[in-house]
Amino acid sequence: MDISVIKIGGNVIDHPEKSTQFLKLFSKFPGKKVLVHGGGVMASRIGKSLGIQPKMHLGRRITDKETLDLVTMVYAGLINKNLVAQLYTYGQMAIGLTGADGNAIRSHKRPEKEVDYGFVGDVEQVHTELLESLLQQAIAPVFSAITHDGKGQLLNTNADTIASEIATALAKKHKVNLYFCFDKTGVLMDANNEASLIPLINDDIYKELIRDEIIHSGMIPKLENAFKALNKGVNHVWLGLPENLLLASKGKNAGTIIESQKYGLY
Amino acid sequence: MDISVIKIGGNVIDHPEKSTQFLKLFSKFPGKKVLVHGGGVMASRIGKSLGIQPKMHLGRRITDKETLDLVTMVYAGLINKNLVAQLYTYGQMAIGLTGADGNAIRSHKRPEKEVDYGFVGDVEQVHTELLESLLQQAIAPVFSAITHDGKGQLLNTNADTIASEIATALAKKHKVNLYFCFDKTGVLMDANNEASLIPLINDDIYKELIRDEIIHSGMIPKLENAFKALNKGVNHVWLGLPENLLLASKGKNAGTIIESQKYGLY
Repeated sequence: MDISVIKIGGNVIDHPEKSTQFLKLFSKFPGKKVLVHGGGVMASRIGKSLGIQPKMHLGRRITDKETLDLVTMVYAGLINKNLVAQLYTYGQMAIGLTGADGNAIRSHKRPEKEVDYGFVGDVEQVHTELLESLLQQAIAPVFSAITHDGKGQLLNTNADTIASEIATALAKKHKVNLYFCFDKTGVLMDANNEASLIPLINDDIYKELIRDEIIHSGMIPKLENAFKALNKGVNHVWLGLPENLLLASKGKNAGTIIESQKYGLY
Repeated sequence: MDISVIKIGGNVIDHPEKSTQFLKLFSKFPGKKVLVHGGGVMASRIGKSLGIQPKMHLGRRITDKETLDLVTMVYAGLINKNLVAQLYTYGQMAIGLTGADGNAIRSHKRPEKEVDYGFVGDVEQVHTELLESLLQQAIAPVFSAITHDGKGQLLNTNADTIASEIATALAKKHKVNLYFCFDKTGVLMDANNEASLIPLINDDIYKELIRDEIIHSGMIPKLENAFKALNKGVNHVWLGLPENLLLASKGKNAGTIIESQKYGLY
């Protein structure tokens, strides 16, 4: 199968207009597809109403028991089920999942070092059988960023990581493209100029961009993740605005495509 | 397939010990099975923290927009995903669903008459293909009591009704038994005496019980629902304590079995 794994962040989820526009595009997106969504903005807002203060350490969220319950409610319940219900409006069959469902994504609690990040899961294994069975039935799996450890514990997991891990696991048997929607037109030569888009990055171009210090710091983890997925067999990774997703599927220059010369299997 | 549809209420969900005991029994329950759960008690408690007051009319909950969001979070998120994660501890494969997922249960918003019950769904259709596919893979579908209208709207739906409707839909092609776990040992001759259990009710016995005014008022809707399911092809309906579920599966007298003489297909 040709499969697209598409990740959207809380910035889309939290705006009904953007969310509707995205879901229409996702429904029109050709072929087999998996959606992975975040939702941190909404979780923080509802947490505030519940008197749950976000706990942070060096910019990273600490997931204590009440925060885990909060994100389980907001990600796996409120956001996930509304996305699924809305997709049917556009004729897109869908099923909302966490990593616990069908044991799709097993993780382990991140080991305590200097900091205990709490109920945060690092992915161990993605089981693809259920996903493949759903995709064959033309049902799009819609994942919230919750996994489980197989011992009864749910764990909060980074949504970008979930998208990469799903793509990587499916890439063992299928041709998989990975799409990260975010709030920029793609990777930019000048972070403040949306017109300075770099349409294609491969290993050689990446080395040059790093050497010439063109890529700003926030972008480096995203690109490292992208190359990691490519190195594990993902066909290409795309970064761009959600509204350009359909253009991207048609190969139009509407975002940044990241390809590996070394590891391309297809 | 032989399929058991098992419903548990908020009184089990809300007590970790009862819940754990039940999930162990459910995992040991033989054959293909579907779980349907409530969660009203927990929803009310979390709603209180969020400043959402339960709105009632003649004992029935009115589901306004914020209550719908609340039950979607609590039923489909917090409760459903924790049940699924815990089932894996006991070796039971499971997948958490609402009626929106895979379009499993389509409903319509209950028409406004004297009272507008808000976002409450009356079931129109259960689509069994996805359920059958999961059951064949030995994955137990775990349903929270949320459905959708196919037009993007989630709807709060009575969990007893969901269990009956799933059982009825599956009974078209399969032999289905329906188990309602509640807080009594079964249907009682004397509501205050747990030892006065009526082990079997059929059409004739039911008529006698009604005529002699033995069945108390709260029980009548449950029994009417049971006969409705039997009339639509469900093999038998059981009412009893969750801890007696496994005995019930072995045909032991541990609850009330309701059978129809007229409509028995098997």
